[in-house]
Amino acid sequence: MRVAAAHTACIAGIGQTEYTRRGGITDRSEFQLACQAIVAGAQDAGLAPAELDGFATFTEARIDAATLQLALGMPSLRFSSSMWGGRGGGACGALGHAAMAVETGRARHVVVFRTIAQGQSRRYGRFDPQRAQGNMAAPFGLFTAPQMVALVLQRYAHLHGLDPLAMAEVALAFRGHALRNPLAVFHGKPLTLEQYLAARMIAEPLRLYDCCMESDGACAVVVTTRERARDLQARPVEILAAIEHGEAGWGVGPMGGHNMPEARYATGGQRDLGRELFARAGIAPADVDFAQIYDHFTGMVLIALEDFGFCAPGEAGAFVRAGQLRWPDGALPTNTAGGCLSEAYVHGMNHVLEAVRQLRGDSTAQVAGARIGLVTGGSVISPSSAALLAAA
Amino acid sequence: MRVAAAHTACIAGIGQTEYTRRGGITDRSEFQLACQAIVAGAQDAGLAPAELDGFATFTEARIDAATLQLALGMPSLRFSSSMWGGRGGGACGALGHAAMAVETGRARHVVVFRTIAQGQSRRYGRFDPQRAQGNMAAPFGLFTAPQMVALVLQRYAHLHGLDPLAMAEVALAFRGHALRNPLAVFHGKPLTLEQYLAARMIAEPLRLYDCCMESDGACAVVVTTRERARDLQARPVEILAAIEHGEAGWGVGPMGGHNMPEARYATGGQRDLGRELFARAGIAPADVDFAQIYDHFTGMVLIALEDFGFCAPGEAGAFVRAGQLRWPDGALPTNTAGGCLSEAYVHGMNHVLEAVRQLRGDSTAQVAGARIGLVTGGSVISPSSAALLAAA
Repeated sequence: MRVAAAHTACIAGIGQTEYTRRGGITDRSEFQLACQAIVAGAQDAGLAPAELDGFATFTEARIDAATLQLALGMPSLRFSSSMWGGRGGGACGALGHAAMAVETGRARHVVVFRTIAQGQSRRYGRFDPQRAQGNMAAPFGLFTAPQMVALVLQRYAHLHGLDPLAMAEVALAFRGHALRNPLAVFHGKPLTLEQYLAARMIAEPLRLYDCCMESDGACAVVVTTRERARDLQARPVEILAAIEHGEAGWGVGPMGGHNMPEARYATGGQRDLGRELFARAGIAPADVDFAQIYDHFTGMVLIALEDFGFCAPGEAGAFVRAGQLRWPDGALPTNTAGGCLSEAYVHGMNHVLEAVRQLRGDSTAQVAGARIGLVTGGSVISPSSAALLAAA
Repeated sequence: MRVAAAHTACIAGIGQTEYTRRGGITDRSEFQLACQAIVAGAQDAGLAPAELDGFATFTEARIDAATLQLALGMPSLRFSSSMWGGRGGGACGALGHAAMAVETGRARHVVVFRTIAQGQSRRYGRFDPQRAQGNMAAPFGLFTAPQMVALVLQRYAHLHGLDPLAMAEVALAFRGHALRNPLAVFHGKPLTLEQYLAARMIAEPLRLYDCCMESDGACAVVVTTRERARDLQARPVEILAAIEHGEAGWGVGPMGGHNMPEARYATGGQRDLGRELFARAGIAPADVDFAQIYDHFTGMVLIALEDFGFCAPGEAGAFVRAGQLRWPDGALPTNTAGGCLSEAYVHGMNHVLEAVRQLRGDSTAQVAGARIGLVTGGSVISPSSAALLAAA
């Protein structure tokens, strides 16, 4: 029997720790943060942690599955998956693996999680000589993510033009959303266009506020079947589609191969991902009420809008400058909790949580009547992933 | 819709490199060996490598998904999974992830692989001080796998008695099978009971020939839907069930928690795995025509026979001494290519390949009329995994 599997898995619970700037959490390890978020996610669903029976995470997990199982008191671990190669592109892929596990009956309650305490483990924004080994781009000066992404944006600028005020608007819009979200690291810290423009250049065209933050925190979501979710206490959110996709040549090396066909080098490597995602869900970009777009860098949000079909190539700048990402009046309110730029950097798991809050009607920047939301994983990373979620 | 997913995925191709003793392969890297095995697997199925669109592997993969995709010329990578926590217990779990991906339509042709060149990367039999960090058992002298497994076998011996000649028979039976298999590392190297008994003690009760080898080599299998497999050139092998399972407390630390309820400590931590596997496939141990049991250590084969329901607790020794694992006359011909002890140590992927050969009728120790075979992953590792395969 061939399986028609879409629409059968739901998110039944979400949990998180507090989010802080890097180094803000000193009394708990990354492992303990994971446990805290997972227990909160189970409680939100109305489950005891011992009722969980699956894990889904993605590349660069620094904790051990069996130890986590023991700490959570789970008698049985029936599914234990790490999306291979995902890095910042993996949150929706892990969500998709969890969906597969419950759709095929391998496990009943799978928790998808991410825990990052950059004050304790690794600073993602800093050059790490150990990790440079095997990075073919390092001899050319591409040591950190902004340097690598800047090349893609320079190419985009060459082909289409890149309006600095469009990048600024991404930063300002998301900061505006974070000001409404008490959980956001940058809650209570407004950002003005003058501050944005006055900030130092990191890697042209990326200024300081074009780059995501370094933070500490953990997130978890509990995935189960639709039938089971209906019996639990939280309002279920349907996983219409959650898939991963790698385009050939993208992502070789830490961020991007820089050896792409010309027509693709000014993209984020997510065009095929976007096409397959919408095809799988059987809907179109016009059906989407809001988006949570992986915003490691402002400019890549513009490119993601094009890769996922919301704008034609070269037209995202005008779309964004018209205020379309802003809650409440934009056509596509985006990163309504603040995103990687202003809420927290949890490798996109926080984007999944905010999509769930929107579809439950619980966001601090609630899109009226939100029925369908898009979540994307990091661009210029391969394989990456994305998901379409819907109110049940 | 709840999915009835068993029986829908098939193995459509197998590939491997040569197997050598550790250090025998000096002209290719672990990465190149993976490519070689994967290309051979695709060719066996009648596919071009570019038609592959998914990867499934397990913990401790030392290569990169995007680079592997590029090397194989795959335009799209639609599924990229690593079983999390699997180590030597992961081969059948990765097979199960591949099965899920094709059952749910995420990908069409998923390749499951393992590549280990212990001459180049890591000696699994040697103490590695770096890896001892966080190993709570190291201060008690448990540095390497035989030391850890020996404790479980000592407990088994205390409860049930452990016949040294039963352990010897496991080593001798599998060596006998390897003598028929030109691909086996120990092909052409007979082992006598006198040699076995005269060999030095490694960790009581484990002598030298009770311990698996260190070797170089890689294996791959291609998984697709049953419908698609029928159109390909190799005889398909059905995946009746391929699941992973972790029992609470097993496997914390590199091999076993050593902090188990008394009734479980003389097991390999695979009783629940075995029960769930047979339940999922809807068959019983009596339906199995042959087994490929993960034989990191001879004694653990005895315990696996009990965990998977072929023998009652304490009775595997007599079963084995009666010759039941021997081809062609035993009741359950086991490790018919030689296993980890005498064919190669590829973290159990070579066991999957031999099961496929048996079900195609291609083994060098062919079980007459073989219809159903069991493959198990490493015991005293958690989560571990197992599969039931059937001739299509």
